[in-house]
Amino acid sequence: MSQFSAIDYQMMSRAIELAKRGRFTTAPNPNVGCVITVNNEVVGEGYHKKAGEPHAEVHALRMAAERAKGATAYVTLEPCSHYGRTPPCAEGLIKAGVSKVICAMSDPNPQVAGRGFNMLREAGIEVSVGLLEQDARALNPGFLKKMETGMPFVQLKMAASLDGQTALSNGVSQWITGPEARQDVQAYRAQSGAILSTSKTVVEDNASLNVRWGELPSYVTDVIEPAQLRQPTRVILDRQHVLSSDLKLFHSEGEITRVAQAGGDLNVATNSANQLDLAETLQRLAKEQQINHIWVEAGATLAGSLIQQQLVDELIVYLAPKLMGADGRGLIGALGLTKMQDVIELDIQDIRLVGCDIRIVAIPKLKQK
Amino acid sequence: MSQFSAIDYQMMSRAIELAKRGRFTTAPNPNVGCVITVNNEVVGEGYHKKAGEPHAEVHALRMAAERAKGATAYVTLEPCSHYGRTPPCAEGLIKAGVSKVICAMSDPNPQVAGRGFNMLREAGIEVSVGLLEQDARALNPGFLKKMETGMPFVQLKMAASLDGQTALSNGVSQWITGPEARQDVQAYRAQSGAILSTSKTVVEDNASLNVRWGELPSYVTDVIEPAQLRQPTRVILDRQHVLSSDLKLFHSEGEITRVAQAGGDLNVATNSANQLDLAETLQRLAKEQQINHIWVEAGATLAGSLIQQQLVDELIVYLAPKLMGADGRGLIGALGLTKMQDVIELDIQDIRLVGCDIRIVAIPKLKQK
Repeated sequence: MSQFSAIDYQMMSRAIELAKRGRFTTAPNPNVGCVITVNNEVVGEGYHKKAGEPHAEVHALRMAAERAKGATAYVTLEPCSHYGRTPPCAEGLIKAGVSKVICAMSDPNPQVAGRGFNMLREAGIEVSVGLLEQDARALNPGFLKKMETGMPFVQLKMAASLDGQTALSNGVSQWITGPEARQDVQAYRAQSGAILSTSKTVVEDNASLNVRWGELPSYVTDVIEPAQLRQPTRVILDRQHVLSSDLKLFHSEGEITRVAQAGGDLNVATNSANQLDLAETLQRLAKEQQINHIWVEAGATLAGSLIQQQLVDELIVYLAPKLMGADGRGLIGALGLTKMQDVIELDIQDIRLVGCDIRIVAIPKLKQK
Repeated sequence: MSQFSAIDYQMMSRAIELAKRGRFTTAPNPNVGCVITVNNEVVGEGYHKKAGEPHAEVHALRMAAERAKGATAYVTLEPCSHYGRTPPCAEGLIKAGVSKVICAMSDPNPQVAGRGFNMLREAGIEVSVGLLEQDARALNPGFLKKMETGMPFVQLKMAASLDGQTALSNGVSQWITGPEARQDVQAYRAQSGAILSTSKTVVEDNASLNVRWGELPSYVTDVIEPAQLRQPTRVILDRQHVLSSDLKLFHSEGEITRVAQAGGDLNVATNSANQLDLAETLQRLAKEQQINHIWVEAGATLAGSLIQQQLVDELIVYLAPKLMGADGRGLIGALGLTKMQDVIELDIQDIRLVGCDIRIVAIPKLKQK
């Protein structure tokens, strides 16, 4: 990494911060940021805001205008080399006369990775790759996972009391967590391409499962306008077709995909336990609906199944400062474990207070199946 | 607070840090620290190490020697005014010729509070009180609670998986938490005057429930010598006299107090549910055995009873980065709650990682009984 200077790190950090501003609007496109400098001074910057709109490099080049000649461009992702809804960014950088391009990472699509860099190098531009790659990867967990595996990135939200109960014995569960945690959930929903739930949860809570402007935290409403609000698709597992049209779900903003064995918007096979095939559901959402990033809000049964089938990339657990007693309802279903080495182990990524609640972000460790 | 200067805050902070060094050895005495300064330079300092040994002021005055004349003394607690195993510290400060005394707090015993200050003032010494009082109070939660209410300070330790399970369905529970959390528990035990448990826990785990030098974290072994290790009394609720003499408990260091209805070392009444009276047990441990500070390690039943009876001052919850499934054993017993407003609410004081586990310190909010 000695090829990069302190200024390079600073500029790429700036490009990453810019990219983050797009995270509520770019899906299914990746978040990308770009900074253009001359003599270590920023002359242009930009980020990708929305599919169909200009890429980060275009915004930054427009701002830099004539000053782009001989400049250095920092980009969080390899500039594209193909003609899509917009001309290739590599061509834009070449035409503008940029003399050096520093990228955090190459394109995750193996079929095009390196082509952007080749175009730039063939035009005589100096290209370096790998600066703050891990941070740049973290901008696009869904986009990268889908490109690399064909599966979407899955975040599972859970909320319980400190003693792991999601409801009292009579089912009462509103509200366990506080308003700040519920705002936090709105922000996670806004970042996702789809919200996955079950007809049981939708019916029990008469849940809309969409993003509501008035409930978003200020760090979201500071970077987007109400008109830019993008609703994730609501994907509801409804094997038994119990969703009725009077539910709030059908009278609130956002697309709906009902998953069933037959007669749904998406029809998937069932397994030997007569449950809808979760892996197939996720894979087909990624492939057929360009959904890279799924936020799951459901009950203990779906949570337990997703975890046991190792389909969860990240757990977001809110623990309220409450004790509800062991006669409540548990966080995940019964796992039938009898040996300590069989429990599901997690890597804790982050713990913090969100309002009065504790939020834990954890990654399930993979086991050999 | 404008009566205190920045130097005053600095010196009292130092006195508080010194006092903390005694926290594994002073019980049942309070932790006290003292700093003596001349022209804002430290000329003497000390802390109380152990009951029967010199008080903090004596150590600091010895170190200051002749330089104590005209000096300022910072003490975390009002200097004593009575002749006990040592002469009163107020007298020592007067004899040494100190001209100013700054204290964090007055004596919590209402019968003697202010007497030390009066002795000092009558000798012409300038006295100020209240600097960093909250921090000084935090040095001695047990000593203060017993003085102020007659009851000991009770810390309840709990350990579970992130989904609130303390064991698998077959009872397997070793080990849920990691070695660092278990070391942390050893440090909490070392700070307490007694460890409270049940014969059920002692028999099931064949637990010694004592402090083991080799398992203490370095922040304990850095401040005490092996020979100074003080064992808390092991208080075991044994209503049905099931403890047998072959248990490890009886072959490991530390006193044992068996609590029963009759025939125990401490005999207390039972309630209508035929359970030993917990409030009476705690009160009598404080009164009869000078136990100010109790560390509880037991199962879900005792934990639930103590919480429901509002006898817990602080919860220390270790959550391991594991999911065990709702068919395991819950963190506290059934509470029979049906309304969200009846759940036990907590104030979170601290959340942090201890090794790979999450440690949460929380205070149960009092409810009207």
